[in-house]
Amino acid sequence: MTDYAAPLADMRFALSEIAGIGEIAGLPGCEQATSDVVDAVLEEAGKLAGDILAPLNRTGDRQASRLENGIVRTPDGFKEAYAKYVEGGWNALPFPAEHGGQDLPMALSTAVLEMWNSANMGFALCPLLNVGAVEALAAHGTKEQQRLYLPRLISGEWTGTMNLTEPQAGSDVGALRTRAVRDGDSYRITGQKIFITYGEHDMAENIVHLVLARLPDAPPGTRGISLFLVPKFMVNADGGLGPRNDVRCVSLEHKLGIHASPTCVLAYGDNGGAQGFLIGEENRGMECMFTMMNNARLNVGLQGVAIAERAYQQARAFARQRVQGRPVTAKDAGNHPIIEHPDVRRMLLQMRAQTEAMRALAYYTAGAIDRARHHPDAETRAAHQRRVDLLIPVVKAWSTDAGVEIASIGMQVHGGMGFIEETGAAQHLRDARIAPIYEGTNGIQANDLVGRKLLRDKGMAAKELIAEMRALDAPLARAKGDDIAAIRKGLAPGVDALAAATDWMVAQGAADPPRALAGAAPYLRLAGAVTGGWLMAQGALAAQRHLAERVGDARFHEAKLVTVRFYAEHILATAPALLPAITGGATVMSFDLEQF
Amino acid sequence: MTDYAAPLADMRFALSEIAGIGEIAGLPGCEQATSDVVDAVLEEAGKLAGDILAPLNRTGDRQASRLENGIVRTPDGFKEAYAKYVEGGWNALPFPAEHGGQDLPMALSTAVLEMWNSANMGFALCPLLNVGAVEALAAHGTKEQQRLYLPRLISGEWTGTMNLTEPQAGSDVGALRTRAVRDGDSYRITGQKIFITYGEHDMAENIVHLVLARLPDAPPGTRGISLFLVPKFMVNADGGLGPRNDVRCVSLEHKLGIHASPTCVLAYGDNGGAQGFLIGEENRGMECMFTMMNNARLNVGLQGVAIAERAYQQARAFARQRVQGRPVTAKDAGNHPIIEHPDVRRMLLQMRAQTEAMRALAYYTAGAIDRARHHPDAETRAAHQRRVDLLIPVVKAWSTDAGVEIASIGMQVHGGMGFIEETGAAQHLRDARIAPIYEGTNGIQANDLVGRKLLRDKGMAAKELIAEMRALDAPLARAKGDDIAAIRKGLAPGVDALAAATDWMVAQGAADPPRALAGAAPYLRLAGAVTGGWLMAQGALAAQRHLAERVGDARFHEAKLVTVRFYAEHILATAPALLPAITGGATVMSFDLEQF
Repeated sequence: MTDYAAPLADMRFALSEIAGIGEIAGLPGCEQATSDVVDAVLEEAGKLAGDILAPLNRTGDRQASRLENGIVRTPDGFKEAYAKYVEGGWNALPFPAEHGGQDLPMALSTAVLEMWNSANMGFALCPLLNVGAVEALAAHGTKEQQRLYLPRLISGEWTGTMNLTEPQAGSDVGALRTRAVRDGDSYRITGQKIFITYGEHDMAENIVHLVLARLPDAPPGTRGISLFLVPKFMVNADGGLGPRNDVRCVSLEHKLGIHASPTCVLAYGDNGGAQGFLIGEENRGMECMFTMMNNARLNVGLQGVAIAERAYQQARAFARQRVQGRPVTAKDAGNHPIIEHPDVRRMLLQMRAQTEAMRALAYYTAGAIDRARHHPDAETRAAHQRRVDLLIPVVKAWSTDAGVEIASIGMQVHGGMGFIEETGAAQHLRDARIAPIYEGTNGIQANDLVGRKLLRDKGMAAKELIAEMRALDAPLARAKGDDIAAIRKGLAPGVDALAAATDWMVAQGAADPPRALAGAAPYLRLAGAVTGGWLMAQGALAAQRHLAERVGDARFHEAKLVTVRFYAEHILATAPALLPAITGGATVMSFDLEQF
Repeated sequence: MTDYAAPLADMRFALSEIAGIGEIAGLPGCEQATSDVVDAVLEEAGKLAGDILAPLNRTGDRQASRLENGIVRTPDGFKEAYAKYVEGGWNALPFPAEHGGQDLPMALSTAVLEMWNSANMGFALCPLLNVGAVEALAAHGTKEQQRLYLPRLISGEWTGTMNLTEPQAGSDVGALRTRAVRDGDSYRITGQKIFITYGEHDMAENIVHLVLARLPDAPPGTRGISLFLVPKFMVNADGGLGPRNDVRCVSLEHKLGIHASPTCVLAYGDNGGAQGFLIGEENRGMECMFTMMNNARLNVGLQGVAIAERAYQQARAFARQRVQGRPVTAKDAGNHPIIEHPDVRRMLLQMRAQTEAMRALAYYTAGAIDRARHHPDAETRAAHQRRVDLLIPVVKAWSTDAGVEIASIGMQVHGGMGFIEETGAAQHLRDARIAPIYEGTNGIQANDLVGRKLLRDKGMAAKELIAEMRALDAPLARAKGDDIAAIRKGLAPGVDALAAATDWMVAQGAADPPRALAGAAPYLRLAGAVTGGWLMAQGALAAQRHLAERVGDARFHEAKLVTVRFYAEHILATAPALLPAITGGATVMSFDLEQF
């Protein structure tokens, strides 16, 4: 019942038809990603995910990581699974070859990361956080820091963490108080960090903490924050491990979900100060942090996709074997599984259509990152970077909100059994629920989209995207058949609504920021539904083309067409109706705070 | 942080302006419900809920009920709290005086039941199930059964249960296998029932199980089911307790939420058969069961309202004390609570507006039950009964789906703290999640609404309701001000969409049932959003009238107007956009089942 099989057909479809992995493989630095390699990577990753990680998902939930005398013990089997993961070279997938990586495109590593998260989100958080540490070091570390730390962070022998939050500094990072004092070539770090994912554990030899802290003479707020590398064990010049640093885990949080992932309170400097090394420049820590956060936000968005896929697979398996009632379509009173009931079919299609749209958006965005990094033309790179910057908050918030909804529908398909913990459906909802919160709450994402991404360039990036969406109308109009006609009918008003909302936001964002920000969350939802719909419509055209040309799996392509049509009728259709909420910020701001 | 204070102002408003408690008090048999009595009941119930039940909510979640040597022990404090509840006469509120009840209207007891559920849903389930048992006995029991059982079920000294589900018989009650064999004047019951809420516990002297079972010669399916009364302890003719009956709790489920409420597996007849007494006629058990279920469905819908209110209060308290970041509205960098951030205000208003609409709908429906029971005119009674039958599945499914969403928003307002169990916000989500599942899943409710309530009378009851909705347009058009204009602008297209969808459903339901049922869930959602909006619009008109007449609390009425406008812009506005999903059943049914 809790099996997971990587959805290879739709992953390949999203990579080839939406992300354009074939084109990406033609970019300098992405040549590794030949069609054979892509296939082999997906196949092999699917085995590790399905055979090793997925069966540990319930164990991880039941046992949880636990703190014993300062040591965090991960659930049974996690250490061994992590060793297999490292041994297989999986951690090195997206990183540069110069530091020991495999130079494979983000689009491909995104598909692989989806698998880890579907199989075992509590486990996958460890590599996920590591990615941020590697990228910050690769972008801002000194040559010596890179030489000492990157190869083993990239191999996965060591793991990385991100230390931002303190009790009084959550969304407001600038309020942090952890202190760093210069001490020769390094710094002494003192303070307490909370909510540190895999801040301590037993799966790797060493843990490399990236810690935001404040120098004594730093200006207040975010302009006075610096980023430090603080290893759990000091690292000698030859790369060998030295003594234990002055950082320890003092407690673990008792959470709703992701029980396997230890969420640590870390105390720095109880014995005089942890030794830390500056990354980048003093007081420029926020810039380094954003390097880490941008991809982390994409990857958390991907967790929404991943948990939705897992919940879908589990609900589908249950609906196929559970016999209950006589479906209205049944010609006899024999044993009918509930998947035959119209409303169960609707629920499964809702899960499937939304998940496929979110996957398309995540892979598309990852592909845009590849293009922004590797395209030979600077202007093209810049255009893709604008697209990435615009879409990252959408991927993060839209996909994680939907991940919660889909996990909840998955429970509903199970009926009463869904509420029983042993069934496993409830775990997906509990696990999914963190994703709209961490790596910047979805409210922060909406503020980022409207307050920064739209207003900084006066809507230019958004308008470029909308123009591309409009350009799809002609091919949709030319294509034959009811399905495409219904899809076009859903997409066009969605794009119009997004264009109108964007204009409104750009105007109001300057004139009346509170009013704009009060509509930011529904604006983001509109952007997600319509961008997802645009990519799904591209998928429908590709599927129809393959059907006409008799290329590939006809039944998969037929199913894709119906799925996209369902998406248009059930999700895209409701998107333009968000306009009154988007532009209704004055109503929100007029409510008397005392009357809440 | 986890305090609860009954929202007396909005409860009074919904009772007087929406349910029409003043008019109900004028009906024969409802004379007890004078304005003073209503006020006193609400005040006193609010104290019990806030002072006694609410503080036990976290205890109940943490400790859970536990099975020890066949005995179920409820969490610390529950037994004492239940004694206070019985002692205060609270259980007797809605029941007929002839059996020891207080003859108070359903509308009022619904408001009170909301409080118990807000304060402590795990506790409130015990009285909630008892209501169904009392109503089944009052409607179908013999005089002797009523004499022996009703007074103590009504006082709450004894509690009642509903025993429907078996492992192979969930939504498909007709598949049940529990056997009843005639044995003189009574029956011997043998079989296993699962998911029996408060099937065993230590809060009452005796437990009266209402059990669906099948006679040896019964026809198959639902036409061969009979209802039996099976007491835990046999009851002597003088009302004293006799020997233990042959029923025992063999295990408790480990659930996502409502941990305090013991969900029992009950074994009947391990020692020769439990003695049971027929209620109503043989093979007519389903009718009796529907008597129990109808109000139980209203009350489960009310749990959606209740948990939403609790989650709202907790999120509001957190948002008022948590200082984080500088709101865009802030004139200085001082300490600003997050309630000042536009997106937090939006989230709180979303919770508040939806909760008030659900409360309005639940109380309105309860008021219609009072009218259907007590109005002197038979035709008026019948008209109200039609309204009740139509709205019960809407109250159940719409309010419980929204209850989950609102509890989830409540967690979101808390940010990272929301994911930590000690905060208490996550418990509301876990508790809320059962309500869309039990008492008939929300899919079953949608099927009931479309397949039975709409089609049985060819949409007559729905069209009566829609006509009343349309009649509100004239007063809305006459009323002054932007708020009412915005509300009217949201309501009118909603009503049009509901009318169109109803016509479509009535036509398709006959022509192509699978296609209609595939759109039943979005139809129910439309019906909920529009009916809630219609009642909210009535509330807005009443608030504006009171403001003009300078009656009552002006700030409450001003807040109500803004809340209704928010509802129109954020919830009503999206309702008509459900039409493509409602009428898109052909897409659902065209998806190849093998391709899931």
